[in-house]
Amino acid sequence: MNKEGNFIYTVEVCFSPKLYPEILTKEDFIVVLVDILRATTSICTAFENGVKTIIPVASLDEARILKAQGYLVASEQDGKKLDFADFGNSAFSFTRDKIEGKTLVYCTTNGTRALETAKDAKTIAMGAFVNITALKNWLLKENKNVVILCSGWKNKFCLEDSIFAGALTDALLATPGFITRCDSAKAALDLWSLAKHDILGYIEKAAHRHRLKRLGLDDVIPYSFISDLTSVVPVFNGKEIIKIV
Amino acid sequence: MNKEGNFIYTVEVCFSPKLYPEILTKEDFIVVLVDILRATTSICTAFENGVKTIIPVASLDEARILKAQGYLVASEQDGKKLDFADFGNSAFSFTRDKIEGKTLVYCTTNGTRALETAKDAKTIAMGAFVNITALKNWLLKENKNVVILCSGWKNKFCLEDSIFAGALTDALLATPGFITRCDSAKAALDLWSLAKHDILGYIEKAAHRHRLKRLGLDDVIPYSFISDLTSVVPVFNGKEIIKIV
Repeated sequence: MNKEGNFIYTVEVCFSPKLYPEILTKEDFIVVLVDILRATTSICTAFENGVKTIIPVASLDEARILKAQGYLVASEQDGKKLDFADFGNSAFSFTRDKIEGKTLVYCTTNGTRALETAKDAKTIAMGAFVNITALKNWLLKENKNVVILCSGWKNKFCLEDSIFAGALTDALLATPGFITRCDSAKAALDLWSLAKHDILGYIEKAAHRHRLKRLGLDDVIPYSFISDLTSVVPVFNGKEIIKIV
Repeated sequence: MNKEGNFIYTVEVCFSPKLYPEILTKEDFIVVLVDILRATTSICTAFENGVKTIIPVASLDEARILKAQGYLVASEQDGKKLDFADFGNSAFSFTRDKIEGKTLVYCTTNGTRALETAKDAKTIAMGAFVNITALKNWLLKENKNVVILCSGWKNKFCLEDSIFAGALTDALLATPGFITRCDSAKAALDLWSLAKHDILGYIEKAAHRHRLKRLGLDDVIPYSFISDLTSVVPVFNGKEIIKIV
């Protein structure tokens, strides 16, 4: 407890799914999954536009089978939409007219892998700039420790997820209920302090920003770094992603 | 090649041994192993003070067996010297009167684990602030790509190794022969830009700095962040660590 008698919870940042087994937070915690470019940004957008549920799958074979069963399927590999899929992974694909009230099957390179990594966690919430304040407010009410899990790019550290981890850590530490003892969280805070005044300028140097540009998929980048476009908090319940807030 | 006709080599940073299998550098490269607090700082100090060779071992059992065979042994676990050992892992232990001309067996929590991780690399050099300029000058002559491997703390990201990775990346990129496309290297550069004007002030927030303080082992911290106390470059040749420069 702190001086004011509030319980104190910890924030820990994990820069890659490969580092998730090493987290120090042992007690009951919420995982915030982050894949700014583009899975968690797209998932928040889909719920903002009325999708009913999202079924994340880790393999293309699963996605193909579910497509044959009549599901709407969003699927990409290395940033490219696959030919059998209805959508790629861009937030701009998930317009209300196409997804409202529907169930969407979702398969991505990095995001789904990170979800698989953390599947033993009781609660996995989807975090992105587009829902950051709603997410923070929900986390404050949950009274649990928080582990921010960056999806990275092919298990490598990536700048865009790391600055989001810094932004969310910053927002949580600004309240009396959270502290951190985690070097990754402190580094993320520092990177966010350098990025926050000109996020798009900062993210110019990110490798994935250039990968998306080569693929002609960088139209979604400015959108992905705008805060609070939605108040949804999507949560994975072990089987599917639903809107909890 | 760049405009001046020099070959261009890449710098990549790896924030944890767990991320080493994910490195993108495929061609012939040199690994720079970093464990600022304290293995690589101590190893450089030992060579500065005349040690002949250092045999790194990953297990306490190996260290015990070699001690019984008459070797000088430095061994610690979680920062504490083990009772059968001649030394812990502090650079201040390795004074000239004790180690000059000797072979030292060395077992540490984090450094040796990282060395094991990268053992397939042809060349593994020991990097620390105490030898940073000598190391940079040697790397410039080697004409190879560079992978900076941070030992971290129990496979987790740590600030002290990361700011060194930034400092060495900064020094290499200041020459015409190196570039980077690695988000980790760019993050390390940013952290170094925040740390370099007051390194000891910056490192106050590092978790390991506080672990060492609790163990009474923090006397070596100011020393560990001084640049260029030695011009040695220790290199692991697959069996033992020798002085190559």
